[in-house]
This record gives sequence, structure tokens and C-alpha cells, in this order.
Amino acid sequence: MQKLARRGYRVPVERMGRPDIVHNVLLQIIETPLNWEGGLRVFVHTQDDYVISINPKIRLPKNYVRFVGLIEQLFAQKRVPDKGEPLMQIEKSNLQQLVRKTHANNVLGFSILGKPTLMRSAAERVSKLKNPLVFVGGFPRGHFGNETRRLLNEIYSVDRESLDAWVVAGRFVYDFEWSIGVAQNRIKSKNDQS
Amino acid sequence: MQKLARRGYRVPVERMGRPDIVHNVLLQIIETPLNWEGGLRVFVHTQDDYVISINPKIRLPKNYVRFVGLIEQLFAQKRVPDKGEPLMQIEKSNLQQLVRKTHANNVLGFSILGKPTLMRSAAERVSKLKNPLVFVGGFPRGHFGNETRRLLNEIYSVDRESLDAWVVAGRFVYDFEWSIGVAQNRIKSKNDQS
Repeated sequence: MQKLARRGYRVPVERMGRPDIVHNVLLQIIETPLNWEGGLRVFVHTQDDYVISINPKIRLPKNYVRFVGLIEQLFAQKRVPDKGEPLMQIEKSNLQQLVRKTHANNVLGFSILGKPTLMRSAAERVSKLKNPLVFVGGFPRGHFGNETRRLLNEIYSVDRESLDAWVVAGRFVYDFEWSIGVAQNRIKSKNDQS
Repeated sequence: MQKLARRGYRVPVERMGRPDIVHNVLLQIIETPLNWEGGLRVFVHTQDDYVISINPKIRLPKNYVRFVGLIEQLFAQKRVPDKGEPLMQIEKSNLQQLVRKTHANNVLGFSILGKPTLMRSAAERVSKLKNPLVFVGGFPRGHFGNETRRLLNEIYSVDRESLDAWVVAGRFVYDFEWSIGVAQNRIKSKNDQS
């Protein structure tokens, strides 16, 4: 980011708020058994109401500098790559529109202000819901705004201190895998093979 | 990294191998209840046999570019910050010396070539050991070398495909927290307060 800023043009990726937080979260949830088995759809909502849809097949750049390059390309072209199946697409959308578009019946969120709940119990509960949508706040401090909170059916707090967004997201995906048996089945099938 | 290389001098941080992998792993394990409660000591072993000791009190830079700056300073000064309590220190050491120095009685590792084991079971087992040391490979591909494998008492494979180092490390720390009751106690104490 600093590097790009020094080149002397406005950096579109800054509209994302904190692309480093987004990158860290994606790194923790995209290359997971849950996503590999088609159990995850990921959207990134930006502070100026854009929504990025991420194709589960994406191979996420592990290096931050390369990720920023990809996001710049995305803002310029509205999709990457510019031909063939899109791996990321961006469109103007607020969270309410996202909830409608995904036909989410249950919208849950994580926040230190929520109801104290073990992550395992939260994931277990979400895994039993039909079409759930889970919000993880990607802001460095502060909480969901009033408008966002109105969309949430339940808010969970999974530790007595604030956890980084990527820790919350990673732990949720992992416990969700466990709740639906993905972790167990994948180790079982490996044992069967050998 | 690219940015630094362009300045035209040899980049010490490259000796770390893949600092982006190290950064991603640290992000997932340093700001966790386990580390906050003093249950974690983290060392980073570099490809040219340096070992970085990380003070659990460190506030890790969340931004990769800033993290690289800190590591450059570390290689130059052998410690950061240069005065007061060190948050990171670096010294010449191979893994065998690290095992001796930490008085580790049990050395465990994660690798796709290991014994298929649920992460929860692996963490449960490690939590019952006295003075365990756990290796997570931070290389983009390949496996522990022969010399490293000789140090390992057990190797676990926790999925049938290769998982990124930060996913393995994050899940291990989380399941370890659960094994020793940290996750449960912290939610319980929050409930007691309210």
C-alpha cells in the first residue's frame, strides 16, 4: 500500500478499507477443506458499499503485495481475470442487498458485544440452519453499525477479549467443518486408502 | 520484498525464506487466548540456521510491509527494539540446538506424510505431554528434511490434502486451547461477570 501510494496516483484498493485484514481473513478460510468441498461462499463488503464475490475455485495469492495487485485489477475491470470464468467480481451493493441476493434466512455475526458463546456451539448452531449468512467485521476497531446490526438475527462473542477477524473466521470455518463432519470424513477416507 | 529488492541492496529478510508465510503463521497464533495466557512460546527457524525467539508480549504488525521492516531491523540489530525488553531476538542455531535449548522432551511435527490423525486428537495428545515442541513447516512446498525428521518423535497428517502452514498452526493452537480448557474458561468467566 505504502509502495503504491508513493507512485503518486490514487490507490483504488484503499476503498477496501483495510485490504491487509481482508487478505488475512481470506488466507485462513479459502484454502480449507470446507471450501474445497464446496461448503463455503465468501463475499467481501467494502466501506463504500461494494461487494466482492469470490469464486471458491480461486487460488488466492499468498503474498500480500500480489494480492493488492489483484484487487487493483478487480476495481479497474470489475472482474478478474478479464476473460473466462471470473474468480472475483465486484458490484455496487450494500449489506441489505447482499442478504436479499443470497436468500439468507439467518444472518449471524461475531462481535465482542454479542452473547458469550463457545465458538464450537455457535458453529454447531449455524450448521443446523438453512442458508445462513455469517458476518465477520473486518475493521481494525469499532463494531457493526446500527444498520448492520438490524440485519443480524444473533450476535455471538466467542472470547472475553476482541479477536482478530482472521482468527474468528478461521476458527468458525474449522468448527463448522467439524459440525458437519468434514474434518472427520477426510481423515477417515485417508485411513481407508492407506 | 519486491519493493526492497528494487532499492538495489541485498535483502537480509530473504534469508528467512518466505517471510510472508512466517507473517501469516504468526498472525494466526500470537494474538490468541493461548498466547495471552502464557501458554505458547514461538520460535522461527530460518533456512540458513538462524532462530528467532518471539516474546509472547509482542504486538505483531498486522501489515505485511511493516512486518518486513521489523524483520530487516532484527537481522541488522539482532534484536528489536534495540533497547529495553526484546520482543524478537535472533541467533545462529540449528533445529537440534533449539530442541536442546528448549529442553523439549517430545518433538512433534505436522506433515502430509505423517500418520493420519484428527487435529483435535493430536492437540489433545500434545497437551498431555511434558515440554512438547511442535514443528510446522513454513516452506511453500516439499517436506521436512531427513535431519529434521530425525528430531521428530511423531508426525501427524491432519487432512488428506496439504494445508497451508498458517491453517495448521491456527487450528493446532485453537484445539490445544480447547484441550487445556482455555476457550471454555474464558467464556465461562465472561458469563460470570455479566
